[in-house]
Amino acid sequence: MEPTKLTYAAAGVDYHQMDALKLIAQRAARATAANASRNGMSEIEASRGESAYVMEIAGQLIASITECLGTKALVADAVRALTGRSHYDSIAQDTVAAALNDLVSVGATPISLHAYWSTGNSEWFADAARTRDLVRGWKNACDVCHVAWGGGETPALNGVIEPGRIDLAASAVGIVRGRERLTVGDRLVAGDAIVLVESSGIHANGVSLARKLAEQLPDGYATRLDDGRSFGEALLEPTILYPVLTEALFAAGVLPHYCVNVTGHGWRKLMRHRSAFTYRIHMVPPVPPVLSFMQRAAQMTASEAYASLNMGAGFAVFVAATEADKVTAAARAIGLRAWNAGQVEAGAKRVIIEPLGIEYQSDDLQLRD
Amino acid sequence: MEPTKLTYAAAGVDYHQMDALKLIAQRAARATAANASRNGMSEIEASRGESAYVMEIAGQLIASITECLGTKALVADAVRALTGRSHYDSIAQDTVAAALNDLVSVGATPISLHAYWSTGNSEWFADAARTRDLVRGWKNACDVCHVAWGGGETPALNGVIEPGRIDLAASAVGIVRGRERLTVGDRLVAGDAIVLVESSGIHANGVSLARKLAEQLPDGYATRLDDGRSFGEALLEPTILYPVLTEALFAAGVLPHYCVNVTGHGWRKLMRHRSAFTYRIHMVPPVPPVLSFMQRAAQMTASEAYASLNMGAGFAVFVAATEADKVTAAARAIGLRAWNAGQVEAGAKRVIIEPLGIEYQSDDLQLRD
Repeated sequence: MEPTKLTYAAAGVDYHQMDALKLIAQRAARATAANASRNGMSEIEASRGESAYVMEIAGQLIASITECLGTKALVADAVRALTGRSHYDSIAQDTVAAALNDLVSVGATPISLHAYWSTGNSEWFADAARTRDLVRGWKNACDVCHVAWGGGETPALNGVIEPGRIDLAASAVGIVRGRERLTVGDRLVAGDAIVLVESSGIHANGVSLARKLAEQLPDGYATRLDDGRSFGEALLEPTILYPVLTEALFAAGVLPHYCVNVTGHGWRKLMRHRSAFTYRIHMVPPVPPVLSFMQRAAQMTASEAYASLNMGAGFAVFVAATEADKVTAAARAIGLRAWNAGQVEAGAKRVIIEPLGIEYQSDDLQLRD
Repeated sequence: MEPTKLTYAAAGVDYHQMDALKLIAQRAARATAANASRNGMSEIEASRGESAYVMEIAGQLIASITECLGTKALVADAVRALTGRSHYDSIAQDTVAAALNDLVSVGATPISLHAYWSTGNSEWFADAARTRDLVRGWKNACDVCHVAWGGGETPALNGVIEPGRIDLAASAVGIVRGRERLTVGDRLVAGDAIVLVESSGIHANGVSLARKLAEQLPDGYATRLDDGRSFGEALLEPTILYPVLTEALFAAGVLPHYCVNVTGHGWRKLMRHRSAFTYRIHMVPPVPPVLSFMQRAAQMTASEAYASLNMGAGFAVFVAATEADKVTAAARAIGLRAWNAGQVEAGAKRVIIEPLGIEYQSDDLQLRD
């Protein structure tokens, strides 16, 4: 049985509806900026709508964020039957990465993090192996990113969370060590290079689609990919922790002009910056087998796939063209592949992926007020 | 039909199980403290296990926290049929209060806040009146507390969150303006006064019990209380925002020795401080009609009721005995009733509520490593 063609909206994620709500909330949030000044603080206004919020507090630039894992834990729950492992160590890393990969996008060094583990019933934690994996993976991700795990919240929300499920999120605080590191949009210029950094797989975005696909495949999550792994295990490859990269860049003296954590809107997110620029991509990284499989199995066009999945590029660093090689070298030094894959040009806001003949217009991405 | 006697565990909240998980996670979290020092930062170790986590970042004391509303939104969903109002303005205030009332307990001035609004499906936000109420109530609570609403996350988690439901949480950042304001435990001494500050009703704790009770009452949420209000509307009285009080105390030159946001463990939480002290209460505040109704209808003993509900005391300020009158006066000046209701004594860790003949032992509250 061939799975029918899947679209993102059919998989239960209607970004148009969410984006509309976000705009209403963003407007109200913006109106609260004056509250901070009543306390003698001030916000970095340019950080509104960026990946993390930055305030100037007693002369220091403090960044903060809250991010959710999404539905990837459902994949772990299903795959456990195949592998016997809970995979919640990976799930924990995915959740920490969701927060920290966004936090570092504005130039912050992550400092501390809170866990949000919300279950339908406290019974969730009676599974000791799974709980241990979750705690261990969470701690390990914090250690890798040099972050202090400050605490957390573990509510049991009977009637809100589905029985046996968990809603995982993380909030994080960081410091931007010097204004020259702050990347909230004002540094990006035409001529900048776009360095794409590898992803490890699906990370945590496109998971609704993956779940829908698994339902339609005869062998479900047990379906073998070209690399021999099962679809389920490949999906559960943990998200790369990009703070290791951004700190390596600072250590190498590289100051990015802008960064994008490639998540929910796929490569459309490369035009996240508020200004009108054209982002011309002249090479595409190798696509992780799990993502090429998904594209094929869900009968997605390349345009659809790159519009919603990371397709091998999990993070983008925008940097002066003369610095691009330093970025790829710094990435390589920490074991990450990166490619000087394109450039920023003056022009209408769009992303052009030349090797694939894809073009995304500004209208395809509405994240801002 | 008389409702049968309800216990908290029967209502789906097993704090013993949750507390066990918390201990495991707290141990792992504690081991990450060294990560911060690798970044040249340091944690205020005494803040671990306190209501908010405090780090020293470039000479400033930065406090952070993530807190969840719990299941109170389910009450709003049910009561809407009676009143025609969404009540999500109140629900929003409850959620902001959950985070900020804990944050100020360590002596912090709240600065910024992120929203976490997680739904089962993006359709949740298609209800424009409810969405508007949520945004308006959230903004208003931020305005009252002089907090900048920095952003948020609005995931649609099909398969994790129940259809039509929302998981609401908030994360917040604050600054402790001077070490003398830091209340993470080292200031509390025998002889200190315990000033109890009024609650507006159930706030957001004991809601599972209230929901269970509503199911058993012939008229459910429409049941009339002594004050003429319906049970449902009384439950939805929004939580008091105590940052207004703590800032008023600082403005009046009062430096609390410790603070407790009275939440999930009711008055047992008065012995939250890590040291062994006896907390002797010599008067009890008037009980809000909704809580006395709950105690009566659920056939709870006074000991059971005060062990899980705030029973009219939503916040406790521990302060030098000579300062107690200043606290009650500062509270009165902002429209809050407060009572110099007890004192801290040397002795075994316990809470003694003399007028009710209640005594809670240390074993009744396990929050710490």
